[in-house]
Amino acid sequence: MEIGCPVSNVDFDRILLGHGSGGRLSHRLINDIIYPAFNNSLLEQNHDGCVFPVEPGRLACTTDSFVVDPIFFPGGNIGDLAINGTINDLACCGAEPKYLTVGYILEEGLPIDDLKQIVNSMSMAALTAGIWIIAGDTKVVERGKCDKIFINTTGIGIVPNGVYISPAKAQPGDVVICSGNIGVHGIAVLSARESLGFETELKSDTASLNKMCTSIVREINDIHVLRDPTRGGVGTTLNEIAQSAKVEIEIEEALLPVPEPVNAASEILGIDPLFIANEGIVLVILPEEYADQAISILRKYPEGKNARHIGKVATQGKALVKLKTIYGNHRVVSMLAGDQLPRIC
Amino acid sequence: MEIGCPVSNVDFDRILLGHGSGGRLSHRLINDIIYPAFNNSLLEQNHDGCVFPVEPGRLACTTDSFVVDPIFFPGGNIGDLAINGTINDLACCGAEPKYLTVGYILEEGLPIDDLKQIVNSMSMAALTAGIWIIAGDTKVVERGKCDKIFINTTGIGIVPNGVYISPAKAQPGDVVICSGNIGVHGIAVLSARESLGFETELKSDTASLNKMCTSIVREINDIHVLRDPTRGGVGTTLNEIAQSAKVEIEIEEALLPVPEPVNAASEILGIDPLFIANEGIVLVILPEEYADQAISILRKYPEGKNARHIGKVATQGKALVKLKTIYGNHRVVSMLAGDQLPRIC
Repeated sequence: MEIGCPVSNVDFDRILLGHGSGGRLSHRLINDIIYPAFNNSLLEQNHDGCVFPVEPGRLACTTDSFVVDPIFFPGGNIGDLAINGTINDLACCGAEPKYLTVGYILEEGLPIDDLKQIVNSMSMAALTAGIWIIAGDTKVVERGKCDKIFINTTGIGIVPNGVYISPAKAQPGDVVICSGNIGVHGIAVLSARESLGFETELKSDTASLNKMCTSIVREINDIHVLRDPTRGGVGTTLNEIAQSAKVEIEIEEALLPVPEPVNAASEILGIDPLFIANEGIVLVILPEEYADQAISILRKYPEGKNARHIGKVATQGKALVKLKTIYGNHRVVSMLAGDQLPRIC
Repeated sequence: MEIGCPVSNVDFDRILLGHGSGGRLSHRLINDIIYPAFNNSLLEQNHDGCVFPVEPGRLACTTDSFVVDPIFFPGGNIGDLAINGTINDLACCGAEPKYLTVGYILEEGLPIDDLKQIVNSMSMAALTAGIWIIAGDTKVVERGKCDKIFINTTGIGIVPNGVYISPAKAQPGDVVICSGNIGVHGIAVLSARESLGFETELKSDTASLNKMCTSIVREINDIHVLRDPTRGGVGTTLNEIAQSAKVEIEIEEALLPVPEPVNAASEILGIDPLFIANEGIVLVILPEEYADQAISILRKYPEGKNARHIGKVATQGKALVKLKTIYGNHRVVSMLAGDQLPRIC
């Protein structure tokens, strides 16, 4: 890559505008930091894109940009979050995630060590999930024109034959299962914001759920819905499902797995755990006859050890979500209005 | 989508943080502005991702983030640029582009009318190129934490059987063809930057080149390399090819299609047209026997009307690029060092 210009031999400890030029500094950044972390035979094509073979069938595709603030938080950073988030969206389509692309937008002045740490977390997350990074892009903007680093990941997965999972498939008689504790990611990120000044022992639940999801999809061939309740939380996600399927969903407050530290922090902050983002749980909706089997499959995985039944699809009613409170009365859970937790993912 | 909360009935003229919440305002933004522009049967799945069928064969995939400043410039805006750029990267893999995903990062306060104009340009560009937007994501960051709007597009295309195009395939005896004028996009964007204070009649050459590229790939079955010389310009792109293929590429200054306004602006700004970004041209490298046929195919398309031979792959030499000047001597064209033109795409 060297063509005799001394600039390539200088070590930088921060991102410069030139790292986004498409020229020599860009190549050096990519060759020194990014390629080594994501090394695989598809990425090395050194082309405008990656070419890969496909079998006949169906693919799933999803995209997500990550702007979490702060970029490092208890339990993870923007890097593994960006990998896990897109993997989980594919898994919730019933797909087995295979390939991801990564687009970086870097702020001039970002410490190279921060970038290395983020890229290494992405590499580890990709390895854990068993997926390949097949294409990437890096842009740099001037100081003050973004916030340290934003990452887009776009994923491609293979949908097995016979698998048709969709929010629109929720139907009366189904049960709603939640694979783990609610509200952990959001509170962990908020605790890391200097301006908030509260502390918690919680760590983000960011994790790739594809192996757990693949397992449940393979063993139970009548899963109706899989959804990871990220931005907007369990409350918003259930509303989306209720509206897609035109069904009433009823959840029980007493059954919701809200850890005590999430409850405590939510009270301090005046927010509802049902609207706090999660990055390591999935909602499973399926016929009641499979509920116990589903819970026992989920519990075989560390991410699913707290899996439990939290509600059901009502036999009739409007397209909305109701919560049966611990006092036995019911209230409507609306979709999140406004934004109680900006930049949580 | 309405659940009875009055916030959904209020009209906003600027992006709010709540538009990125994943909640009701996000849904409204997507349902009111984005879905109608990109309407197609795959996008309407209302799921975490899109599922689509594939035939056996090979797919190409590429990703690109767009951070151009300013977001509106003569001849285009960040929206059509983002669509065309990713389409052209797919086309340069020899692929027929089919599907794109779109990820928006919006700055709080962005006028809704600007967003509408950008989304409509994307819709038009997608229609012109014959591709579908199949998945999307929208994030919002606080005022001052990005610069109006950043867009990631990731694309999937189908590589026809028998097509193997790669920068590594350039070989001695090949000719280098350029499909159109050099340096136009970069100068058009620079002219729109208020701080630069110079004017030009140039308009960006942003265009989708997939139909032209598909045509040449179908009619000539021995194309070695296709590359669009965007960021870093023709000079950097040829260096990448020279290094991939380990060949010496020689171009002739007298043959380069540099329009007079690009030359004039380059002199004022002290930059070299060979390093200025292009968004509507492609470099074609192929055996000399097909050169005339290739040029005549390119010239059938409006984007290729100025297509011409600009150089060749030398029969021997190091992995570098040489320019034969108008005075008959030679100089080495290095890869762009530093960053002469930040945020040009």
